[in-house]
Amino acid sequence: MKDKITALDLAPAELSEATKAYFAKCEEKLGIVPNVLLAYAFDETKLRAFTDMYNDLMLGQSGLSKLEREMIAVAVSSINHCYYCLAAHGAAVRQLSGDPAFGEIMVMNFRAADLSARQKAMLEFAVKLTEQPDKIVKADRAALRQAGFSDRDIWDIASTAAFFNMSNRVAAAIDMRPNDEYHAMAR
Amino acid sequence: MKDKITALDLAPAELSEATKAYFAKCEEKLGIVPNVLLAYAFDETKLRAFTDMYNDLMLGQSGLSKLEREMIAVAVSSINHCYYCLAAHGAAVRQLSGDPAFGEIMVMNFRAADLSARQKAMLEFAVKLTEQPDKIVKADRAALRQAGFSDRDIWDIASTAAFFNMSNRVAAAIDMRPNDEYHAMAR
Amino acid sequence: MKDKITALDLAPAELSEATKAYFAKCEEKLGIVPNVLLAYAFDETKLRAFTDMYNDLMLGQSGLSKLEREMIAVAVSSINHCYYCLAAHGAAVRQLSGDPAFGEIMVMNFRAADLSARQKAMLEFAVKLTEQPDKIVKADRAALRQAGFSDRDIWDIASTAAFFNMSNRVAAAIDMRPNDEYHAMAR
Amino acid sequence: MKDKITALDLAPAELSEATKAYFAKCEEKLGIVPNVLLAYAFDETKLRAFTDMYNDLMLGQSGLSKLEREMIAVAVSSINHCYYCLAAHGAAVRQLSGDPAFGEIMVMNFRAADLSARQKAMLEFAVKLTEQPDKIVKADRAALRQAGFSDRDIWDIASTAAFFNMSNRVAAAIDMRPNDEYHAMAR
Amino acid sequence: MKDKITALDLAPAELSEATKAYFAKCEEKLGIVPNVLLAYAFDETKLRAFTDMYNDLMLGQSGLSKLEREMIAVAVSSINHCYYCLAAHGAAVRQLSGDPAFGEIMVMNFRAADLSARQKAMLEFAVKLTEQPDKIVKADRAALRQAGFSDRDIWDIASTAAFFNMSNRVAAAIDMRPNDEYHAMAR
Amino acid sequence: MKDKITALDLAPAELSEATKAYFAKCEEKLGIVPNVLLAYAFDETKLRAFTDMYNDLMLGQSGLSKLEREMIAVAVSSINHCYYCLAAHGAAVRQLSGDPAFGEIMVMNFRAADLSARQKAMLEFAVKLTEQPDKIVKADRAALRQAGFSDRDIWDIASTAAFFNMSNRVAAAIDMRPNDEYHAMAR
Repeated sequence: MKDKITALDLAPAELSEATKAYFAKCEEKLGIVPNVLLAYAFDETKLRAFTDMYNDLMLGQSGLSKLEREMIAVAVSSINHCYYCLAAHGAAVRQLSGDPAFGEIMVMNFRAADLSARQKAMLEFAVKLTEQPDKIVKADRAALRQAGFSDRDIWDIASTAAFFNMSNRVAAAIDMRPNDEYHAMAR
Repeated sequence: MKDKITALDLAPAELSEATKAYFAKCEEKLGIVPNVLLAYAFDETKLRAFTDMYNDLMLGQSGLSKLEREMIAVAVSSINHCYYCLAAHGAAVRQLSGDPAFGEIMVMNFRAADLSARQKAMLEFAVKLTEQPDKIVKADRAALRQAGFSDRDIWDIASTAAFFNMSNRVAAAIDMRPNDEYHAMAR
Repeated sequence: MKDKITALDLAPAELSEATKAYFAKCEEKLGIVPNVLLAYAFDETKLRAFTDMYNDLMLGQSGLSKLEREMIAVAVSSINHCYYCLAAHGAAVRQLSGDPAFGEIMVMNFRAADLSARQKAMLEFAVKLTEQPDKIVKADRAALRQAGFSDRDIWDIASTAAFFNMSNRVAAAIDMRPNDEYHAMAR
Repeated sequence: MKDKITALDLAPAELSEATKAYFAKCEEKLGIVPNVLLAYAFDETKLRAFTDMYNDLMLGQSGLSKLEREMIAVAVSSINHCYYCLAAHGAAVRQLSGDPAFGEIMVMNFRAADLSARQKAMLEFAVKLTEQPDKIVKADRAALRQAGFSDRDIWDIASTAAFFNMSNRVAAAIDMRPNDEYHAMAR
Repeated sequence: MKDKITALDLAPAELSEATKAYFAKCEEKLGIVPNVLLAYAFDETKLRAFTDMYNDLMLGQSGLSKLEREMIAVAVSSINHCYYCLAAHGAAVRQLSGDPAFGEIMVMNFRAADLSARQKAMLEFAVKLTEQPDKIVKADRAALRQAGFSDRDIWDIASTAAFFNMSNRVAAAIDMRPNDEYHAMAR
Repeated sequence: MKDKITALDLAPAELSEATKAYFAKCEEKLGIVPNVLLAYAFDETKLRAFTDMYNDLMLGQSGLSKLEREMIAVAVSSINHCYYCLAAHGAAVRQLSGDPAFGEIMVMNFRAADLSARQKAMLEFAVKLTEQPDKIVKADRAALRQAGFSDRDIWDIASTAAFFNMSNRVAAAIDMRPNDEYHAMAR
């Protein structure tokens, strides 16, 4: 039986008021506290570092729309077959796009999706960076500029793809389980 | 000619007093401001998120020694052929181990190094997590426990290996250049 | 725009009465005529060959339950990132298991699912056969027998995994689009 | 000792008159009953489904010559290192081309063969479909059209390559042994 | 048309008497001068270095039989899909084993051959060394010792497998063509 | 403890006067006898064959500079993660280029180095030949000619890359240890 959030037994920390408030806000906004936050909550320093980076990348100001950032998250997680991230960010793509089928395609194979040239370039870069980071060369950045991305956009594509390469591996290493609620969201 | 720190043109931000002080402290302690910090400095929120996570992982309290964490950094970066991270963290391994040849081996192939069973288990996990995150199963965590690692140690091994899978990809995506000083350090 | 069932322009054949009846039965039983059948319908000989093999494998008598055969279909299609088969057979796993989340996990990474030893052995064989068919040796069949499978069961596991390695590639080659209905089924 | 046709012990079925006649015809035309047929003969439904699909693909009407279809069979089987299919279809290429050395090259590495642009395009598509089905995109189909193939031809290339990705895996899974006669045929 | 021995235009050297004699001896013993020798003959120093190493490895004193050395040659060349070496050394396996079918299996997939435990261990080592040289560890050598090989035998297995990893790549790089005679030898 | 030069116990041969002289010359010129020579010294025929080929390739007349040949050695060894060759030839690149940082980059990822178009073409060919020898085609040779290389240069690039694919594997198979001196050379 897989009831636990992760495969590790980590003594839960006493949550600070700030963290309790943060979790309450998640509950209110999303209907759940995402399990990834509960997994990190055994240590508030680690939780804070994770959420600061995550919130800046996924919710902060960027030339990429929030949907585009979630599309990167899902395309990368599909390559890495990350159950947690596909469940959580697949739901986000369904929600932000308002198109459940589109969320499914992104989980399964982004190349089957009906994408703009801009989005194809963005995802091909994210996926090459995932599969063969050592083979990224000048021409790969040039292809992004050609597709209309600014240098700041390239930073954001790179950082988002890189972040999920981290996150996928934390989740895989500790068998992090997504909240059941994700599966039914935005269908 | 490759004089720039990255391949991107990002308008430099006005540095806050806190950041200036942080950079001054780096300069004092390490003799340099690591280029990765300068690369992130175009946006202090991103810089802060990066350094908070990095400092907790690499310098914070852990059952892994600082050297062991640097060994994970280098083993992962060797798989991903990340020039920036191998230069910077290869230097750290040389320094912390007091054994320049050991730093070199770790850059080249950790399997050629003379490691304890504990360290082998730690690095084999980190490398499998890098190469095939989707194939991590219960038996992989059991091997770490068998080698004497606690669940909290497993978290730290996983987080460190995962972090460098992120960091390697940010560096690769934007062609981040290490400070020249790394090459000569601790030889 | 991706309205067509495949990327190929193939002159539709005049359907025989038998085929019309078959499609009507699909419509009645499933609520749809699966697009794969419409894709093959340009040539009734090909359609018949495909459905005869498919129906025997997936619906015929076997030591594997229908759910187990669908699990093989999805695990193989997940490795091959086949959009058509993941959409269609992911729905089947949701339906036959009565557990929507289980269907999702199988699409994303079967190793994250809570499986019996028997099912793990079955899927590890199917996936090795998919990824490295040339490396299947005696020990791989022995592992299946060890897990309780008969030689006839091994045939069925092999044939089903092999069939979807075919089917995934036909779908990929011609950009076969699944019926929209699959996405919402059995949620 | 490897005297058996497969590694599985499957109770042989009583052969129907139709199957006996079919095997007699094989014997007469080819001098042998191909072992693949004997392997499937434990269940006539499965045998029929297999031969119907095989005969349509490899012997039916198509814009691809029989030799071209056999070339696809061998190029795919070479990637998958399938002993059965390389033995049987390598012989077919030798026979249909009248050029024993050509059959050998196809088994070893089709890229070493002296092929027309059309045949190169056909085999590069078949091999990409074998190795990376998830990466087939519009441009891959366009390359086939550019090389002179019709949409119906693309179907046939795809179906043939896909079929041998199935067949290779059935053979690998059960250690199917080719008839000894193949080795000496058409030398 | 592929009449040339390689894809390179290299001015032929005036052959020394020693080389002429060596080629005459080849002609007498094998019925041909292997094209690899003609390919290297544009420079006698290179030719000599190649033949000295080759003759020592393949014909010199060793705990491995000549057939076993040829089996390594073919197993490695099969992984690398080297047309030249599979044609030439496939013929050698047929000849030395007196079993044409065995030569074919080795070209196609050594794992399908009926091998002794000793030979399996030898070839699994050779193939791992070919595919993942960086992952060879103590346990791999221990498996060879377990199978009865001396340390000198391990040297010979390693050197032979390594040599064909070189030779396969020279042949691939310059499109070296095997003598037509190989195809018909020892059938 | 790893004091031995290799993991094998091979009875040392009595060295001939010629070999003693050769080793003395190494000592004089390089300050060391490279361990690879001591490893081969158990058998003078093997030692001679190795040094003859090595010296011709790396020190003989060629359109490639000695530095370029060492760059190929290091780029290939980096792909194969060969500790011995990266230590020894990394030192050679540092020495011949007079640029220690350049030697480091080549060990870590040649794509991060600031190379001429000629050198990029040379190394991309060497690395493709290392990773996918079976996929080298006419266009790959054409790219070298386009970059200004003669057919004889192509031979030298191919032979050097191929040689280190051999050498890397001998070293990996027997755990060959580089001389300690390499690490500090030319820093």
